[in-house]
Amino acid sequence: MLLPTSRDVIKAYDLIKPIVHCTPVLSSQAINQITGADVYFKCENFQKVGAFKYRGATNAVLSLTDEQKKNGVATHSSGNHAAALALAAANNGVMAYIVMPKNAPEIKKVAVAGYGAEITFCEPTLEAREQTLNAVIAKTGATLVHPYNQFEVICGQGTSSLELMQQVNSLDIVMTPVGGGGLLSGSATYLSEEFPEVKIIAAEPAMASDAYQSFKSGEFHSVVNPNTIADGLRTSLGDLTFEIIKSKVHEIYTVSEQSIVAAMRLIWERMKIIVEPSSAVPLAVLLENKAAFKHQKVGIILTGGNVDLEKLPFSSK
Amino acid sequence: MLLPTSRDVIKAYDLIKPIVHCTPVLSSQAINQITGADVYFKCENFQKVGAFKYRGATNAVLSLTDEQKKNGVATHSSGNHAAALALAAANNGVMAYIVMPKNAPEIKKVAVAGYGAEITFCEPTLEAREQTLNAVIAKTGATLVHPYNQFEVICGQGTSSLELMQQVNSLDIVMTPVGGGGLLSGSATYLSEEFPEVKIIAAEPAMASDAYQSFKSGEFHSVVNPNTIADGLRTSLGDLTFEIIKSKVHEIYTVSEQSIVAAMRLIWERMKIIVEPSSAVPLAVLLENKAAFKHQKVGIILTGGNVDLEKLPFSSK
Repeated sequence: MLLPTSRDVIKAYDLIKPIVHCTPVLSSQAINQITGADVYFKCENFQKVGAFKYRGATNAVLSLTDEQKKNGVATHSSGNHAAALALAAANNGVMAYIVMPKNAPEIKKVAVAGYGAEITFCEPTLEAREQTLNAVIAKTGATLVHPYNQFEVICGQGTSSLELMQQVNSLDIVMTPVGGGGLLSGSATYLSEEFPEVKIIAAEPAMASDAYQSFKSGEFHSVVNPNTIADGLRTSLGDLTFEIIKSKVHEIYTVSEQSIVAAMRLIWERMKIIVEPSSAVPLAVLLENKAAFKHQKVGIILTGGNVDLEKLPFSSK
Repeated sequence: MLLPTSRDVIKAYDLIKPIVHCTPVLSSQAINQITGADVYFKCENFQKVGAFKYRGATNAVLSLTDEQKKNGVATHSSGNHAAALALAAANNGVMAYIVMPKNAPEIKKVAVAGYGAEITFCEPTLEAREQTLNAVIAKTGATLVHPYNQFEVICGQGTSSLELMQQVNSLDIVMTPVGGGGLLSGSATYLSEEFPEVKIIAAEPAMASDAYQSFKSGEFHSVVNPNTIADGLRTSLGDLTFEIIKSKVHEIYTVSEQSIVAAMRLIWERMKIIVEPSSAVPLAVLLENKAAFKHQKVGIILTGGNVDLEKLPFSSK
């Protein structure tokens, strides 16, 4: 298994830099006061397609050979990776074939179709998605771009931490959520070599704690359809992301659903920015573990801002 | 009636600059595509207390004599001005006396009290508010800081347009919402002298169109408790703001409630930032009048981001 190095992340950044947004880093005095830490939020919710996933998808598309470009790219996803790959492909004149479960939100279907991708709908099971994807690839010769368990994707996601380190000096900690582990393993790859003094910490919903369990036991655990509100983190690690995370991440914390909603609400109310539940999981870790992070300078990747405004989790306190 | 000049706005800016946030200016390719205009959003939703009102309140407090500072400041408000004056006073060691209707949202009461202001509750009528405020001033000797119809407040609000002109080159148009007219008259005061080539346009809910009617007829009209969702724009102009607006504003457009909600939703979904309904009124003007603004370079002041997350206007499309 070929593991990426920090040089690969730097190479990815050189490649995608002219195309991706350099997203801003924001702070909130109120949130610093509440957590007792000094927190810097890297706003990938302002990234194109509203999520860091655009970085990995763009790096994957730009890394194709000319021959591969002719046949297009393919993936199955109902979420941000589908939109990210569709737009990254469109921006580079490459065809994208996206397999989506037929019960995917209408707004996501419209977005992916709007970027000119060819959508194939299937039953909403992992089996059906993989079978359908295999059929699409057999027919088209398209190159698979996995949402997280792929070298180029991991390197692309890691550029968000690279950029963060250029924007903020001497962070003690960089914290990301962990679902499939693309962002976490890409960040850990870059930081462990370039900034060995920085602690790399992951945040995971307790209801989808496969990464935590795998990390603690050293053996691969998976979860199936966990019911966490953090819909971007319902997937399990892949073999490649797990291999990187095992050796390069310092700690994984799990948090309650209640803390995730409270953290999300804090970000909306105090920072006036829209983040999806997955983005709020690292702040939830700070809220649940104030003593551990007191006076620490913490960088947090806000992973995305794609929420259904008609189904928000805020109810009367 | 002493009207402010652009020099007064510049003086206000010199005074408040070390204290207020220089808020960012954001753009959205998607919104530019939808409107056909080239739009620059000045994000006063990221200002302290979440609204441009902090500028005017700070200028009013800093303009007090030492003698006046000892006796404090007073106002009646259930909205952003109350929080802005309370924080501006607290940051300068000045006592603030705020008269609030007893049915004001709990969250606003808590915020104002949290800044150390002394709150006097009254019945929710304009009469009761003014009577109670007069009694408070008689007792304390505090200086009245009006939410909009006051020289220092107008100059303070105008600094948002001054800052915008430093951040974006050669705008064709600056557009602000109009309620009491503090922001609009302060902006018009500055722009009409310093950038006479820039058109100053105001945006108002059709349901609260007193400024439009006053502007068109040249005679003062008022509205009483209009039921627009843009809760920051339910007030009528004052004599001072009307005098300025009459001579320095180029046009006032009115828009439907439906367009306001659609514009607000666009900003939330495409820009991933939280704005209150009043902030969305200028974009609603662009949506309703695409031909008039085609290819124009338009600066819009996003006035604030204080919304009740439990009462959002987004329902199934």
